[in-house]
Amino acid sequence: MNRALVLTATLLMSSVSFAQPFTNTLMPQPSHLTAGAGAFPWTTSVTVGVTHFSDQRLNDAVEHLLEQLERKTGVPRQRSIMTSSASSLVIDVDGAGETVQSIDEDESYTLSVSASGVKVHAATVVGAMRGMTTLLQLVQVSGNGFVVPAVEVQDSPRFRWRGLMIDAGRHFEPVDVIKRNLDAMADVKLNVFHWHLTEDQGFRIESKLYPKLTGSGSDGLYYTQDDAREIVAYARARGIRVVPEFDMPGHTRSWLVGYPELSSDPGPYTLRREFGVEAVAMDPTKESTYQFIDAFLGEMATIFPDPYLHLGGDETPGTQWKNNARVVEFMKAHHFKNTEELQTYFSQRVLEIAKKHGKHMVGWDEILNPALPTDAIIHSWRGAKSLSDAVQRGNQGILSKGYYLDHIDSAEDYYLVDPLPAGNTLTPEQSKLILGGEACMWGEHVNELSIDSRIWPRTAAVAERLWSPANVRDVDDMYRRLAVESLRIEAVAGTTHLSHEGAALRELAGTEDIAALRTFASAIQPVPFGERYHQQHTSALTPMNNLVDAVRPDPALRHQVNVLVRELLKSPKTNAEARTQLSHIFATWAAAVPTVEAQMNNAPLLATARPRAQQLAALARTGQQALDYLTGSKKAPAGWKQSKLAEIEEAKKPQSIVRFTFLDPLRDLVNAVQ
Amino acid sequence: MNRALVLTATLLMSSVSFAQPFTNTLMPQPSHLTAGAGAFPWTTSVTVGVTHFSDQRLNDAVEHLLEQLERKTGVPRQRSIMTSSASSLVIDVDGAGETVQSIDEDESYTLSVSASGVKVHAATVVGAMRGMTTLLQLVQVSGNGFVVPAVEVQDSPRFRWRGLMIDAGRHFEPVDVIKRNLDAMADVKLNVFHWHLTEDQGFRIESKLYPKLTGSGSDGLYYTQDDAREIVAYARARGIRVVPEFDMPGHTRSWLVGYPELSSDPGPYTLRREFGVEAVAMDPTKESTYQFIDAFLGEMATIFPDPYLHLGGDETPGTQWKNNARVVEFMKAHHFKNTEELQTYFSQRVLEIAKKHGKHMVGWDEILNPALPTDAIIHSWRGAKSLSDAVQRGNQGILSKGYYLDHIDSAEDYYLVDPLPAGNTLTPEQSKLILGGEACMWGEHVNELSIDSRIWPRTAAVAERLWSPANVRDVDDMYRRLAVESLRIEAVAGTTHLSHEGAALRELAGTEDIAALRTFASAIQPVPFGERYHQQHTSALTPMNNLVDAVRPDPALRHQVNVLVRELLKSPKTNAEARTQLSHIFATWAAAVPTVEAQMNNAPLLATARPRAQQLAALARTGQQALDYLTGSKKAPAGWKQSKLAEIEEAKKPQSIVRFTFLDPLRDLVNAVQ
Repeated sequence: MNRALVLTATLLMSSVSFAQPFTNTLMPQPSHLTAGAGAFPWTTSVTVGVTHFSDQRLNDAVEHLLEQLERKTGVPRQRSIMTSSASSLVIDVDGAGETVQSIDEDESYTLSVSASGVKVHAATVVGAMRGMTTLLQLVQVSGNGFVVPAVEVQDSPRFRWRGLMIDAGRHFEPVDVIKRNLDAMADVKLNVFHWHLTEDQGFRIESKLYPKLTGSGSDGLYYTQDDAREIVAYARARGIRVVPEFDMPGHTRSWLVGYPELSSDPGPYTLRREFGVEAVAMDPTKESTYQFIDAFLGEMATIFPDPYLHLGGDETPGTQWKNNARVVEFMKAHHFKNTEELQTYFSQRVLEIAKKHGKHMVGWDEILNPALPTDAIIHSWRGAKSLSDAVQRGNQGILSKGYYLDHIDSAEDYYLVDPLPAGNTLTPEQSKLILGGEACMWGEHVNELSIDSRIWPRTAAVAERLWSPANVRDVDDMYRRLAVESLRIEAVAGTTHLSHEGAALRELAGTEDIAALRTFASAIQPVPFGERYHQQHTSALTPMNNLVDAVRPDPALRHQVNVLVRELLKSPKTNAEARTQLSHIFATWAAAVPTVEAQMNNAPLLATARPRAQQLAALARTGQQALDYLTGSKKAPAGWKQSKLAEIEEAKKPQSIVRFTFLDPLRDLVNAVQ
Repeated sequence: MNRALVLTATLLMSSVSFAQPFTNTLMPQPSHLTAGAGAFPWTTSVTVGVTHFSDQRLNDAVEHLLEQLERKTGVPRQRSIMTSSASSLVIDVDGAGETVQSIDEDESYTLSVSASGVKVHAATVVGAMRGMTTLLQLVQVSGNGFVVPAVEVQDSPRFRWRGLMIDAGRHFEPVDVIKRNLDAMADVKLNVFHWHLTEDQGFRIESKLYPKLTGSGSDGLYYTQDDAREIVAYARARGIRVVPEFDMPGHTRSWLVGYPELSSDPGPYTLRREFGVEAVAMDPTKESTYQFIDAFLGEMATIFPDPYLHLGGDETPGTQWKNNARVVEFMKAHHFKNTEELQTYFSQRVLEIAKKHGKHMVGWDEILNPALPTDAIIHSWRGAKSLSDAVQRGNQGILSKGYYLDHIDSAEDYYLVDPLPAGNTLTPEQSKLILGGEACMWGEHVNELSIDSRIWPRTAAVAERLWSPANVRDVDDMYRRLAVESLRIEAVAGTTHLSHEGAALRELAGTEDIAALRTFASAIQPVPFGERYHQQHTSALTPMNNLVDAVRPDPALRHQVNVLVRELLKSPKTNAEARTQLSHIFATWAAAVPTVEAQMNNAPLLATARPRAQQLAALARTGQQALDYLTGSKKAPAGWKQSKLAEIEEAKKPQSIVRFTFLDPLRDLVNAVQ
C-alpha cells in the first residue's frame, strides 16, 4: 500500500474532485468558458438530435462520441439519432466544411450545457468534433451516475497546425498503434498527423510502381496502400490531416537497397541497422532521380490527399556527392560552391514536382537557403531562429524545436515553449506565417509496446500550448489537469501509456508482484535519446527489454515532489503537511529498495539497474535527514551538506540508462539546511 | 510498497526462479519431459531451418514464433528462414496435415534442446505448432540474455477437443478481442474456438441471404462475413478449429425481430435486453422454418469449414408452442407427448440439414432424448451424467459442466474437473467418445474491456486438464506454473487480463494513485453470475462500470493465503515464515483501507463497495489476532472465537457484488485458536 503517494495525490488533486461544483479539467483549455449552475444528467434517456445539416462524417462522429461516452460511463448509448432540435443533446452544424481539410478549416465551436440540455454549434463538421471532444471531457461522476456540468464555451484554436509526428521508419508501428494515437490526438484537439514513413532503417509504405522499395527495404514491415488509405480515412473522421513524409535526399538508404541507381554510388546497399547521420543520399544531378521521385510522389498523391507534403531534407552531409567526380563536375557547371547549394537545387526541383502534384512542400530547416522559393514551408527542429528567419523572408513555418519527445523533457518544458513567444518582434503578417508546431516522436528507442508511454500524456501539454490562448501558462494547473487528461486518453483512446509500465515490469521481474518496482519506477525516468544512444550504442537491432523501456518520462511524482519541496521551503518549520508527505515519499522509496533488490536476484535484465536502486535508498535517507534538520531542532553535523551534495552530483552521472527525477528539489532541500 | 505481497511471492515462487538449473514452468505439462544439462543461448545469431516439408502455414507459424520470441526477449529475429538441417533451430515436419483440421489431426511432436541446437519434429504442421509453443514457453532469462534449457520432450494431447467458448451474442466482442484470445488459446494448446454467435440479445454474423438478421437483430454490432473468414484463417494459422454456434430453436429472439415468421407467434418482436430463459422459439412445425435454416446453414457452411456445427438446443421452455393451437395439433398428429419430444423432432430435422451440408451436429445436453440419433454430439453443461449417458448410447460428448467461467470458480476448481474422472466405469470404446471439454465464457456480465480478465489465466488450468496426463493434478504446482503462464499469455497474446484491473481502478478512482485500491482488489473477486444477476437485476443495458467489473476472479493472493494458512496450521508455534507473511498480508490490507475509503469520497461508483472495505479492515484485525493467539502465549478472551466466526459468516453474505477470497482459511485460523 503506497500511502505516501495517495496522500500526495489527495493534496495536489483536491481541486480535481469529481463532485460538484464544477472543476475545470479540460485540456486544452478553451478560449472562453463560463461555468453555470447545475448539471445535465447523462443517462439512458438522453435523446440525440443532429439538426440543420448532417453528412456521413458528422453522423459517424456523433456515433463515435456516443460510443466513447458509453465506454467512459458504462451507460448504454442511444441507438437512434434524430434530427429534432428538441432532443436533449443537439448537434447543430452549418455545413460540411472542406472536402479536403486545409490549414484554414474552421475549427471553432460553441457548447452550451444547462440542466435541461446540451447543444454543440459549429460552422463545420470539424468544429463540431472539437465541441464534442470538449463535451466528452466535461462528463464527470456525480452520485451514482454521470453528469455534464452547466457551462458556456466559445472556443477556437490559436494555431492552425497542431501536430504529432510519428517515425515509423526506424521502428515500424502497426496500424492499431497509429489508430489509437489518432484517437488520443483527437481528444486533445491536435489536427495534423505527420507520418514519417521512410528512413535509412526502413521504407514503410507500399509502392506499386516501385515494389522493391518495401520488397528490399522494409524487412517486410510496411503499410500497404490500403492500410494507408484506412489511416487517412480514420484521421479525417477525427478532423485530423495526414501529412506524409518521404525524407530525401538523405535518410534514404532503404530506398537504395532496391534502387541503387538513385544514388551517385552504385552500391550495392543493405538496410541500415545503425542510427545517426548516414553518408548516402540520392543523386541530385541525374534526371532519372527526378523522374523516379515524380512518379513515386504521383502515386503517393493518390493515397494522401493533404495539400502539404513533407520531403524532409535534413541531415544530408553530401559525402557521396563530394566523392563522385561526375557530381563534382555538375556542381562546377552550375556554380554551386558547396553541397548545401547542390541540395538547394535538389529542393527546388522536388518543390516543382510537389507543386505539379498539387502539393505544398514542407522541409526540415536545413532546406532554408537564400535560393529557396518562399512557397516551401520550413519545419524548424534545430532552433527557433530558423523559424523566425523563414517567416521574415515570407515562408510559412512550423516549430518542433523544443517539442522533441525523445529528449525526455518534462511536460512543463514542452508546455512553456511557444511558437510565438511573448516579446517576439514579428509583424502580424509574419506571425500569421507561423502555422503552429508539432511534437515529434522519433523512433530509435521506441517500439509498439513503449511508444504510447513516450508520447502521452506529455503531448497533451504541447496540444494545449498550440490550441489555447498564449496566457494559459500556469504549470501547476496544467499538471493538475494533465493527471486527469492522462486517464481520459487511456479510457477513450485505448492507449497504453499508463498500463505499459506494469506489463513491462511484470515481464522484467517475472512475477505479478511489482508493487515495490512500481515505487522504484515512480522515481526514475528514461534517459534522453543521446545519452542512451551513446551509452548503449543502440541500433535497430538493440533489444528494448530493459528497465529504461518500462519506465515513463516525467512520471506524475516528479512534479509533485517539486511542488512539495517548493511549498516546504517557504516555511520549513510550519508546513507540516508538506513535510509529512515528503517524509512518506522518502520512506516509501527506502522501504521499496530491499524488495526491488531481492527481485533483481531473479531477474538479470532488471539487475542492470541495481546501482540506481542502491542510490535511491541512500538519497531517500538523505531526504529524510534534510527534512529532520530543516523542521526539527537538531543541527546537521559538519560536512553533512557537502557530502550529501556530492552524493546528489554522483547520482546525476549516467548509470543504467535511467535517471532520477527528483535530484534538483532534493538538492534544494539539502542546500536549505543550515 | 506492498512488502507483504512481495515476500509471499518470494516464498511461493522460489522454485520458479529464472536462473539455472531448469525449472519446469510449462503449461500445459507435456506428457514426457526429461531435463538435460546446459542450455541453448537465444541470440541474434540463431539460424532457422525448415527441413523436409514446408508450406505457407508452417512458414507463417515459424515466422510467428520468431516474432513472439522477439517480443518476449527483445532479441531481433532472423529475417531469413532456410531449409538447412544444419541450422541451430530446426523445424522438421513430415507433411501438411489435414486440409480442414479434424478432431483426429495429429498434434503430437518431439522437441530436443541441447547446448548446440533446438529441433522440433512433428508429423503435421499443427503438431509443429504445439512444439513451437512449448519452445516459446521454455525460453527464459539467463545472465543478461535468454536461453532455452536443454530438454527432451515427447508430447501429445490426452483429449482431442480442447475448447474455449466465447458468447458474442449477449455482449458483442470486437475482432481484435477474438484474435488476442485465439493467441492466448494457442499458447496453452487449446484447439477449438466455439463461437456462440446468436442469442436473444443479438445476432452477430452477417447473412447476405437474410440481411435483416443483423439489420434488425444486432444493434449494428456484428461480424461481417469477411471478419468471420479472417477469424477462421487466424485460428487455422494457430491450429485452432472454429465451431460456430447458431442456437435454436430457443435463444432466437434476435432472429425474430427481422423474421417473425420463424416463430409460431406473429410478433412483432424487439431485441431482448433482459437475460435468462426466454419464452419465444422457432416454430418446429412449419416447413418454412427448415427451409430458412437450410438456406442459412448452407450460407454459413461457406464461411465455416469445420465438420462440426453447434446448433444449441438449450433452454427452450416450449411456452409459445403450448399456446399455439396449430402447434398443439401438430404435436397430437405426431403423437408427441410433450414439447421435449417436439424439440427432439426439431433436432432430428436440423441434424439432417446439418448432415446435408456435411456437418456433424453438436447440441447442448437438452437435446439428449431416446429418439436422438447417435450421430449428434452432446455438449454437457447441466451435469456429467448426461455426458456418460450420451457416450453409453453411442453419442460423442464434450464436457463443459464444471468449466463455466462466469461461475467465478477458482482455477483449482476447474483444474480438478475431469471429463474422464478416475474410477469411471466407461469402457475404452465409450471413453473414446468423450472428445474433451470446453471452458465457457458466457457474455451477460463481460464486455470487451473485462472479458480477458474473466477468461485468463483460469482457462489455462482447463487447458492443462484437457492436454496433460490425468495424473498431473498437483494444485500447488499448477498455481506455481499458472503465475508464470499468466505473464506469458499477456506478453505473447497481448491480452489485458492483468492490465485491465489497473485501468479500471484508475477510471473508477479518477486518479493514477491506485496502490491502495490494488491491495483492496487483491482480497476480493467478482460474485458468480447468478448472484450478480439477482442482486443487480442486470440486463444487456446495465453499465459495467463498477468495482465488480475491475477485479479479477481467483486473484493470485487467494491461493497464496490458502497455502500459508495450511502451512501455518501444521505447526503454528514454529512456522515463523508463514506467520510473518500472513501478518504482513493482514497488515497491508488494514493499512490500505483508510486510503481506499478516502478515495471513495471522491468516487461515487467506487463508494458502493464501502461496506466491503470496512469489513476488510475488521477481518484483517481478526486475522492478526488469530495469529497472535495461535503463535503467542496470550489466550483469546471468552467469546472471541464465536464473535469472529460470526463476523466471518456475516462477510459471506452478498454485498456490493464482490466477494472476499480468504474467508475459509481465515475461518480455519480462527477455529484453530484454543
